Amino acid sequence: MIGNLLPSILRHGNISRIADDGVYITDRRRLPFSREEVFCPDSIAVAAAIKDMVTQGGGPLEAALNAILLDWRRDHGSIERAAAALSAARPTNTTMKRELQSILARVEDGEDMEEIIPSVFQRYDELYDRISDIGESLISDGDGILTTCFPEHTFMLSVAKARQNGKDITVYVPETRPYLQGSRLTEPCLREMGIRTFLITDGMGAHFLREGRIQLYMTASDLALPDRTVVNKTGTLANAIAAARYGVPYYAFSLGFDAGRGRDDIDIEYRDGASLRRIGRERTAEDEAEALYPCFDVIDPELVAGIVMDGGIY
Amino acid sequence: MIGNLLPSILRHGNISRIADDGVYITDRRRLPFSREEVFCPDSIAVAAAIKDMVTQGGGPLEAALNAILLDWRRDHGSIERAAAALSAARPTNTTMKRELQSILARVEDGEDMEEIIPSVFQRYDELYDRISDIGESLISDGDGILTTCFPEHTFMLSVAKARQNGKDITVYVPETRPYLQGSRLTEPCLREMGIRTFLITDGMGAHFLREGRIQLYMTASDLALPDRTVVNKTGTLANAIAAARYGVPYYAFSLGFDAGRGRDDIDIEYRDGASLRRIGRERTAEDEAEALYPCFDVIDPELVAGIVMDGGIY
Repeated sequence: MIGNLLPSILRHGNISRIADDGVYITDRRRLPFSREEVFCPDSIAVAAAIKDMVTQGGGPLEAALNAILLDWRRDHGSIERAAAALSAARPTNTTMKRELQSILARVEDGEDMEEIIPSVFQRYDELYDRISDIGESLISDGDGILTTCFPEHTFMLSVAKARQNGKDITVYVPETRPYLQGSRLTEPCLREMGIRTFLITDGMGAHFLREGRIQLYMTASDLALPDRTVVNKTGTLANAIAAARYGVPYYAFSLGFDAGRGRDDIDIEYRDGASLRRIGRERTAEDEAEALYPCFDVIDPELVAGIVMDGGIY
Repeated sequence: MIGNLLPSILRHGNISRIADDGVYITDRRRLPFSREEVFCPDSIAVAAAIKDMVTQGGGPLEAALNAILLDWRRDHGSIERAAAALSAARPTNTTMKRELQSILARVEDGEDMEEIIPSVFQRYDELYDRISDIGESLISDGDGILTTCFPEHTFMLSVAKARQNGKDITVYVPETRPYLQGSRLTEPCLREMGIRTFLITDGMGAHFLREGRIQLYMTASDLALPDRTVVNKTGTLANAIAAARYGVPYYAFSLGFDAGRGRDDIDIEYRDGASLRRIGRERTAEDEAEALYPCFDVIDPELVAGIVMDGGIY
């Protein structure tokens, strides 16, 4: 059902699939210039691939579900070690960890893994479908929409449904340095979906907000807290501040709050500054340049018009 | 005098010089990875090099001064054609056009070109020196300073003097996509000057402002209006808005107001969006991606704490 609306790289088999007695994961690091899959013979290899950023966003969960099903098929009952390795591969991905724990509990209760895994996939499809109905309702005909990074299923489905409902929309996509998720993932997806899309640099959001070309700012979230704090890819905050200045509402999509954490408990992970000194074979700065690469921004509640979740806008 | 304080690429002979019966211009498009000069046999070739972005910022003026002196030496009196070609090479550079017109007038009044040109160079050196004294006075010991793009002489001299006066400062430099003036010009200059410098992406200014690591935001300006509107490289606005939110003052350096223009008369020039799809040999987006590249941001007066000019802070 939602599969027809999604851009191809977000359809199940194209994120990860079981074949040849192993798990294939599409390598997002090479998209859109080449479509390659990484072959993982077991859960430990899948965990390593997740750690190496072969897939990100909602990808690790799908790859993990396939991995644990494969391991279970080979050796009924012994999935604890696989679940532990997968959970440890991306500590910030609390959704994946929670799902794996719940699956372990259901297996212990005697449920059949062949039924559990498809039911989890289906539950997420239904969740994406319901959340994007709410997202769609926030979009008006004629809207210019700003985003940041790669906002995945909920956002993509929201704009697909808006378009299906005859709303004429334009999306402005910052390239999202240094990994260029905006240029490499978001822009090609929206273009494939037939949405009018403009690629911009990470510093241009404010420019187009000031010009009145943007009426809505929407992103995914890596984390959302019950006090309406949002954690998302660096660059999200700058656009949220500019949106607030020009009276444009900012909505973040979330699959669920990360309970038990406060705003001050958020540790901002730093990645290697080397990413800012090179794009592929091309140097962008000298090797001696000291560069900072904080992964995430914390967006304070007063900048967030709402968190779009299952059941409504928080 | 200021030459000892300036980073090497901003010293006179390193921007442009007369030799071998022609004008050499350092090719800023290749800095810092290779230091190459473009040789121009006459003023028409210098105008073409300026048009091709071989040099930018204060560079075109220095190259034009050398070009017109060279032409005058060859053929006394016939510099009108050269001045017209040079002025037309970069229409937004109103300083260069004004200086060339003033030189034409002085030649008509019978002044000697061999005296005029050195006097213009010296006047600018003195201007940079006085303006940077004011810039230095705005910097406090311990400050984190955010900038955007390549802020050239006045900013570089301000931080050099602050350091000379024992102030411990750190500069945060956004890479400034797509041409990477921050990565390629600003960061190497500051590092050469011994200033603690961190390269960041264009979306990260707000992140470090929120963390309280930045106390001052300073840029050059492509244009400043008497109502305190500033026009500067795209990306300047996003940082100015974020600075205002976190109570950090924004100062823009200017050599003089662009009188006779209102804020609504500013035409924002668009460059080829292809710049966003490739860095050198490396693709960053698909060829089919539609990209927008507005050159400049307009920063409204309420976001500008002051314009640092000759004579004071406006």
